[in-house]
Amino acid sequence: MSLKNYIRDIQGFPKEGILFKDITPLLIDPKATQDCVKILVSTVKNLKIDKVIGVESRGFFFGTLIAQELQVGFIPVRKPNKLPYETIFATYDLEYGTDTLEIHIDAIQKGDRVLIHDDVLATSGTIKAVCELVERLGGEVVQCNFIMELSFLKGRDKIIDKSIFAAITY
Amino acid sequence: MSLKNYIRDIQGFPKEGILFKDITPLLIDPKATQDCVKILVSTVKNLKIDKVIGVESRGFFFGTLIAQELQVGFIPVRKPNKLPYETIFATYDLEYGTDTLEIHIDAIQKGDRVLIHDDVLATSGTIKAVCELVERLGGEVVQCNFIMELSFLKGRDKIIDKSIFAAITY
Repeated sequence: MSLKNYIRDIQGFPKEGILFKDITPLLIDPKATQDCVKILVSTVKNLKIDKVIGVESRGFFFGTLIAQELQVGFIPVRKPNKLPYETIFATYDLEYGTDTLEIHIDAIQKGDRVLIHDDVLATSGTIKAVCELVERLGGEVVQCNFIMELSFLKGRDKIIDKSIFAAITY
Repeated sequence: MSLKNYIRDIQGFPKEGILFKDITPLLIDPKATQDCVKILVSTVKNLKIDKVIGVESRGFFFGTLIAQELQVGFIPVRKPNKLPYETIFATYDLEYGTDTLEIHIDAIQKGDRVLIHDDVLATSGTIKAVCELVERLGGEVVQCNFIMELSFLKGRDKIIDKSIFAAITY
């Protein structure tokens, strides 16, 4: 079974000219979801992961599943003013303007080995900001993994110091 | 073990006068997360659930875990303009103003038996909107479940025609 069969192309979302990769057909199939979790976990099983981060919002879907499969803690990284406790934040560039992500200051202990999960690796701006947050709290980014990588955007080339894994590559 | 030990009180979030119940200590403990999933699933195991809905965003954390535990499909219900395919929407009242939620039109098949999950049952405005979406697509709401119920807000009294379950009650 190819996971690509569970990704739906949506033309023109969120705006004209963009071909969006919709993961809701993957989420609605429990067996395909399970297979995707197994694939994502397979490369980190022996890497002594302490915590899994899921990036708001689509990183939450598989983030908790990966954390449970590894039986480690789950940490949400969120948009501003969503996390209730004390946070640190990182700001990163978008095509137009900037965006910001936050993490709770007590989410990571010094030396924690962290797996970061998001749905898509595109230009890598988001994931670089999350790596920065982890490292500022004293954690080590062991791997960044994704349901899919849009390789034509060459995001991987901008994070060459990190281990990157994607279950699907376009 | 009491799940309440994993809920942190945050005074004054998101605004003055509110005592916020923070679930991140629950998410960071894999055993407590697993116990919470087992409790949430225990009352629906024999109810032939076809689909689990998670409500944006905190309903996503346990939504996919519950769906995998039941080995059924997961459906995200989201804020406007987040779902890429064709949707229907429902609008509901907040303390000041209104809010809107959307669901993909192909997420539910006629006759599907649906479990709706969100993190908190408060005044019930959100969950009533989600029930409306499910029923408009021809699904049956078998249960609405929550990590916690703020019983002093009496949300349960406004959805007496639905089965409600919460793992924690305040």
